[in-house]
Amino acid sequence: MSTITIWTYDWVPVGPRGFVRDLRLRWACEEAGLPYTVCSVPFDGRETNHLAQQPFGQVPFLSDGQLEIFESGAGLLHLARKSSHLMPGDPVGEGQTVQWIIAALNSIEMVTVPWWFLEITGAKDNGLTDWFADRLDKLENIFKDREWLAADRFTAADLLMADVLRVAKVRAFGDRPATESYVARVTDRPAFKKAYDDQLAHFAAAD
Amino acid sequence: MSTITIWTYDWVPVGPRGFVRDLRLRWACEEAGLPYTVCSVPFDGRETNHLAQQPFGQVPFLSDGQLEIFESGAGLLHLARKSSHLMPGDPVGEGQTVQWIIAALNSIEMVTVPWWFLEITGAKDNGLTDWFADRLDKLENIFKDREWLAADRFTAADLLMADVLRVAKVRAFGDRPATESYVARVTDRPAFKKAYDDQLAHFAAAD
Repeated sequence: MSTITIWTYDWVPVGPRGFVRDLRLRWACEEAGLPYTVCSVPFDGRETNHLAQQPFGQVPFLSDGQLEIFESGAGLLHLARKSSHLMPGDPVGEGQTVQWIIAALNSIEMVTVPWWFLEITGAKDNGLTDWFADRLDKLENIFKDREWLAADRFTAADLLMADVLRVAKVRAFGDRPATESYVARVTDRPAFKKAYDDQLAHFAAAD
Repeated sequence: MSTITIWTYDWVPVGPRGFVRDLRLRWACEEAGLPYTVCSVPFDGRETNHLAQQPFGQVPFLSDGQLEIFESGAGLLHLARKSSHLMPGDPVGEGQTVQWIIAALNSIEMVTVPWWFLEITGAKDNGLTDWFADRLDKLENIFKDREWLAADRFTAADLLMADVLRVAKVRAFGDRPATESYVARVTDRPAFKKAYDDQLAHFAAAD
């Protein structure tokens, strides 16, 4: 009996396929062995059509029984609390997992996503590059010393951080071998591959 | 017996005073009536001196018994789980509070902070302005319909969203009366004023 439903678009252009954020929730469910259903909202009209479910017109959002949760980070925290595969149950392990989830969202992605946005929209002189490089350098130093971000094991924090860092333009920036090894290690997990392939198939089915 | 310690810098220039993110955690403790101590790390050498506690050289970080947590958002989530003054205990109220905390960090601040950074570093043509305006417009529509973000009451989500939106340049952008009214309502709370005054006094004491 699945109570978890992950909502995404019915279709997206080829470019973002494999990177739409429903993948974070698919991946988490696959890691945890939680059954789930994927449903669609129309890509056309996304700016206004589903604001009641997602106030910024984005995906994913999640329903689980009576709960409805938007923001991929919030959905991931919800799923992580359901399974020790995603987050240790002890307070220290949980605290470390949550802090690195927030770091991925608010210290890394807060720089990488706007940097990437400026790159693809043709900014001549990307004013975020120094800040972006500094954050990635600090992460590189962290990955030199450890295999996983929290609790010496794979957690939902690695799922999220690897998803943030695997974006092609981010991954191609500079020479950061420890980070590259980390991203390869995390995305080599069968649960990532299943979620990735399933997302591609979902969007391709609507072509 | 206080077990909560909030770490911030010993001093900062006048500009950021009142906006350093330890305020989020001070404010949360004041709302919840949780006793806490404030300790300092040196502002000079911040890029390297306390990386063991905060891997990006930032503040705040929090200790609570055996727990050590960096990222203001993660500290806020930790404190919110300790007090119903900050987050309702029922699953729906908790889910709404968490999703709006994540929205403040990853849908709003992910745009407002880089936009503000480009503004103050003198970008001639701020490439994030359209995206920034769109997010603020969507929030304005939300605040037209409700007094609080989650569970029809003040929660930690309002604390964080108001802290994100009260930044002077953000607040001055456009004409958004419902948002302005929201920010004024939330920052009019005695717990905000106490935290704000205490932060100013903390930094002034080191002048």
